[in-house]
Amino acid sequence: MLQPKRHLLLKKRASSTKEMTKPVDHKVDGFSRYRIDFGYDGTDFAGFAKQPGFRTVQSELVKALEVIFGKSSKDFGMRVAGRTDAGVHAQHQVVHIDLSASQIKRIGRNPDVASRVNTALPEDIRVFSFEKAPAGFDARYSASFRRYRFRIADKSSFVDPLQIRYVLRLKVDLDIGLMRSAAKKMVGVHDFGAFCKARAGASTVRRIRYIKIKRNPKDGNIVEIELKGDAFCHNMVRALTGALVAVARGRATVSDVSDRLKSANRAGSFKVLGPRGLSLIEVGYPRDELLAEQAEKARRLRSLDEN
Amino acid sequence: MLQPKRHLLLKKRASSTKEMTKPVDHKVDGFSRYRIDFGYDGTDFAGFAKQPGFRTVQSELVKALEVIFGKSSKDFGMRVAGRTDAGVHAQHQVVHIDLSASQIKRIGRNPDVASRVNTALPEDIRVFSFEKAPAGFDARYSASFRRYRFRIADKSSFVDPLQIRYVLRLKVDLDIGLMRSAAKKMVGVHDFGAFCKARAGASTVRRIRYIKIKRNPKDGNIVEIELKGDAFCHNMVRALTGALVAVARGRATVSDVSDRLKSANRAGSFKVLGPRGLSLIEVGYPRDELLAEQAEKARRLRSLDEN
Repeated sequence: MLQPKRHLLLKKRASSTKEMTKPVDHKVDGFSRYRIDFGYDGTDFAGFAKQPGFRTVQSELVKALEVIFGKSSKDFGMRVAGRTDAGVHAQHQVVHIDLSASQIKRIGRNPDVASRVNTALPEDIRVFSFEKAPAGFDARYSASFRRYRFRIADKSSFVDPLQIRYVLRLKVDLDIGLMRSAAKKMVGVHDFGAFCKARAGASTVRRIRYIKIKRNPKDGNIVEIELKGDAFCHNMVRALTGALVAVARGRATVSDVSDRLKSANRAGSFKVLGPRGLSLIEVGYPRDELLAEQAEKARRLRSLDEN
Repeated sequence: MLQPKRHLLLKKRASSTKEMTKPVDHKVDGFSRYRIDFGYDGTDFAGFAKQPGFRTVQSELVKALEVIFGKSSKDFGMRVAGRTDAGVHAQHQVVHIDLSASQIKRIGRNPDVASRVNTALPEDIRVFSFEKAPAGFDARYSASFRRYRFRIADKSSFVDPLQIRYVLRLKVDLDIGLMRSAAKKMVGVHDFGAFCKARAGASTVRRIRYIKIKRNPKDGNIVEIELKGDAFCHNMVRALTGALVAVARGRATVSDVSDRLKSANRAGSFKVLGPRGLSLIEVGYPRDELLAEQAEKARRLRSLDEN
């Protein structure tokens, strides 16, 4: 199980440049930024992002923060490291919020804000830490990598009944060797247009650092796919793992995946996998000098709606 | 994670004696006994046993079996190894059912009954195997041991958000050393009257084979209490662990526990723990010659309502 690492502290704020898509940010004089590390069981949420009429992680988190800090018309300027879809879990997620001096006063004599937020939160969201962010910290743009894990049970797996909510079950046989061959094609810098819901003006170029695939004999022989990338666009993890599963069950070949990737075109892509087996397990931030470069690059390359 | 062992096959049926409390058993000529190994997430069940108007594991299991075998007025003569309370989980549970020749015919050409039952079951119950029981098998009376695990997070633990449903969280510090000292007093054969909901005419003498207590550094430093006993009476595991927690948090001493055990009297006992952290993780059956002795002993000692 994951023990979320204490976050690496960041020293400098990325300098803005004119090319950047500027995020709407109500961090002005008098506001201070806070970093919140947390996790959730995504089963009963319509995803992370706030949507009127739906139970989302963000809306529940904002509600709990309002118990301590009072009503916020702008959701405390919250920005998230990884916008997870409906049903996707997060064992380690990060947001930042910006608090005014009068909001900060409400922390009062009990500085254990994490515990107080947890008391106000529903049980399926748990805050690990609530800390003043170092200068320059941006939960989304400063992040240098995201790590996801997808757990899939095939015919030869045994699923612990206490893991049913967290494992995708497929009534097929998966060939892990083929899956690994297809995964090799995905690693590196590519235009993942074939595996992203594209947004106007946003690049679909991403770097995947690795994709590790194994069966876990200590966990019922479940297939675990771990993906680490600088960032992933919308739907990308489930689209990539969908392609891997198509190959592993014999519905596509490794070169089909390779061709699809080169096409950079979403039309005719492989089936996206259901969210249940997927969990964001780590968000990483660089140290010191690398931060400015990281944030600048991220802001330039990506639209506001992606992670 | 547990991989339920293939059950040990039993060769002889325990001979009945006049002293026994005879179970109501509709196993008559023409009926054959089947063994079902399964597990469940107990969160959303009002316990194992059928109760009108409540969602229980037994009622859901019977409903699913009826899809294949047709209506049964007597719940297929189902008997369970460990009657779990509301909210308690089972990673490995066993029942037997008795099927008539005409019911057995319905198995037809698809012998994979486990898969068919799973299709009819809600997701929070999963059947691992459905097999013809060997002569003499009784899910409850033939069982030679039950193993339970209780997981408790204290102040120094980190709970993975995907484990929230399966871990009891306490905002105190637990002293594992004290817990172990108190547990030593419980191991062996005792009258557990102080830790059981007594039933008229039923013995509260049980044998606990071991109680292992550790913090699991790979699982957020959660305290795991594993108890193996021949059998446990109603509420006993939660009452014993409640006493251990009372000692571990400094509310009682080891001799308090010892005195309470000797009193064999439930009055003034320690607080019973909530069910969330508790899971039945294994039911064991003896081989061959030991079976008859085991079943006879169990039937003589225990009432119908206990396990």
